[in-house]
Amino acid sequence: MTDRIKNFLRDVRPEGPCLVVDLEVVRDNFEKFQRAMPESRIFYAVKANPAPEILSLLAEMGSNFDCASVQEIDMALAAGASADRISFGNTIKKERDVAAAYKRGINLFAVDCEAEVDKVARQAPGAKVFCRILCDGEGAEWALSKKFGCEPGMAVDVLDHAHRAGLTAYGVSFHVGSQQKNPRAWDSALASAAEIFRTLFDRGIELKMVNLGGGFATKYLEEIPGEGEYGKAIDDSIRAHFGNRIPETIIEPGRGMVGNAGVIKSEVILISQKAKDDIRWVYLDIGKFNGLAETMDEAIRYAIESDRNGEAVPCVLAGPTCDSVDVMYEKTPYPLPINLEIGDELLIAGTGAYTTTYSAVAFNGFPPLASYVI
Amino acid sequence: MTDRIKNFLRDVRPEGPCLVVDLEVVRDNFEKFQRAMPESRIFYAVKANPAPEILSLLAEMGSNFDCASVQEIDMALAAGASADRISFGNTIKKERDVAAAYKRGINLFAVDCEAEVDKVARQAPGAKVFCRILCDGEGAEWALSKKFGCEPGMAVDVLDHAHRAGLTAYGVSFHVGSQQKNPRAWDSALASAAEIFRTLFDRGIELKMVNLGGGFATKYLEEIPGEGEYGKAIDDSIRAHFGNRIPETIIEPGRGMVGNAGVIKSEVILISQKAKDDIRWVYLDIGKFNGLAETMDEAIRYAIESDRNGEAVPCVLAGPTCDSVDVMYEKTPYPLPINLEIGDELLIAGTGAYTTTYSAVAFNGFPPLASYVI
Repeated sequence: MTDRIKNFLRDVRPEGPCLVVDLEVVRDNFEKFQRAMPESRIFYAVKANPAPEILSLLAEMGSNFDCASVQEIDMALAAGASADRISFGNTIKKERDVAAAYKRGINLFAVDCEAEVDKVARQAPGAKVFCRILCDGEGAEWALSKKFGCEPGMAVDVLDHAHRAGLTAYGVSFHVGSQQKNPRAWDSALASAAEIFRTLFDRGIELKMVNLGGGFATKYLEEIPGEGEYGKAIDDSIRAHFGNRIPETIIEPGRGMVGNAGVIKSEVILISQKAKDDIRWVYLDIGKFNGLAETMDEAIRYAIESDRNGEAVPCVLAGPTCDSVDVMYEKTPYPLPINLEIGDELLIAGTGAYTTTYSAVAFNGFPPLASYVI
Repeated sequence: MTDRIKNFLRDVRPEGPCLVVDLEVVRDNFEKFQRAMPESRIFYAVKANPAPEILSLLAEMGSNFDCASVQEIDMALAAGASADRISFGNTIKKERDVAAAYKRGINLFAVDCEAEVDKVARQAPGAKVFCRILCDGEGAEWALSKKFGCEPGMAVDVLDHAHRAGLTAYGVSFHVGSQQKNPRAWDSALASAAEIFRTLFDRGIELKMVNLGGGFATKYLEEIPGEGEYGKAIDDSIRAHFGNRIPETIIEPGRGMVGNAGVIKSEVILISQKAKDDIRWVYLDIGKFNGLAETMDEAIRYAIESDRNGEAVPCVLAGPTCDSVDVMYEKTPYPLPINLEIGDELLIAGTGAYTTTYSAVAFNGFPPLASYVI
């Protein structure tokens, strides 16, 4: 919650719920990642927040970009990144999208099965591919499913297949789970990656790169490790498993790069009870469908600020739509000041990532979340 | 899956995932509701699908409209509905939105607490209000939380408060849960409503209307009751609980009006396995973030059609984004033909409601779900 954001909200007084992102925080985060992991190239996960101002700043600072679609590739190019600084990091690509990316000069693709390798081989001959492996994500607040990646044993075959199809079998990627608060979580996946490197080396295929993915936590309510702690733990694991054959590494921070740079301004629409002496329900003009999708299953718990300083009482917090699932915190009620009133403004911190683009087009007629980048 | 939709897709061949809605089915549904519940006024729940063509057809056929926001009110007015055919059915309204609605001539508002009554009394003097009561939603596939409504005992006070504030205490509403497959589910809420009517009558306040809400099921994979079965069961309950003082009733079908009128066309992007002999993963170009939000917790199970006629094998079905929660069916895998191939088209039936507007603005750079109304 920076002074720049507070001043902006005070001076501009935008109508309706909105996200305000402070670019100075993004700049600071980028520099911290660079210092913490000087040997790694940074690929910003565009999906976390693709605002043009953020992409331009990062392009200028020398960042690379992890893109999920041709549309995101075009945004990164428009922000000034050259094609050699962009990876097509989605393991699920239409073959015509692989062709469209290759035509734009993209030469680095994620895969996790032979069928995807075949698409890349046909449409992006000679390109570099890295194979994503499964990772258990233990310790992450937003644990990953098995959706992306394959077993390490299969990754060997996938990369071998890529090599035989004329592609450059370039490396291995994994993701330890979003908002990963354990800096040692990278260790077992790095052990698997090193094993894949050795097996393929014995077959005459020399992998070069390990993509360490994202997962770097941003500050919500609880304390999190600093960038330096992640860097140290990962560096130790790499040395332990790769010995004196240290690979190139890349990281893909998204939440860690922009999460704490953003604040959502919201208004209290209603405070009520379902019965006398029952818990209070507080309804905001923002909810699961216009920005706070990550409160799904109460996974992410944001810090919320009010000007009121009354005693905090537990409240159920819900959004403005006529949809019964549009409730943010109910299983674990959220403490809010007892003197909170209808019409009050609340500031929701740590909302720079995964809010604006998750927002529904027009659910219940409400417009998508407005965004200001300052 | 009507011939009109099949012909449209064959002739137009739209690029990318899209929803196609057949207005003839909507027309047919409206007529079925009229025949099944001739004494009830129909308020179409605009949030289910606010496509202008749907609203215009329904306005022309004499439907009324249940709106969740001023934006939806404006859509209903633009479609040709007069203000006296529109209800502001959201119990969570900004006071300035109540004023904006009243300025447009809206005279019917939902409330569920005294604070909301006060807003309406200040901004829409003399308007009709109905109080929503809690309902357990037993038997619904998309069970409602306690987000809307209050205990019946409190509803008496809320309506009494409205009466004293100069509003017209007009009735009681409830919702038995979306995709409610038990036609008897309305019974206990109707008993509570009748009790509220009697209590207030004894205080000299004569309520007029019961809003029976929505909940009418649309056909997905399992058989559902016909409109006539709902009508009969509800009619029986009303007679049992209200005796010879039968109130006006209104119904708010959304899913039941448009669900079976729509089909989503999707493409298979990838078929893969995580390990040898493991379950198949089938990835589509549509998922939780661009239309299939209601597969959350695997709540709604759509019927999916393929041209292939191979033996059906269980598959995990996932969407195209780089988000690990973008998986539709995994706990209960979905049977799809063993000879399904990458690039195949799949038709997802029963997707006319709660798909387009739930769609994210641009998550992962993917555009929101395209929609064609024919």
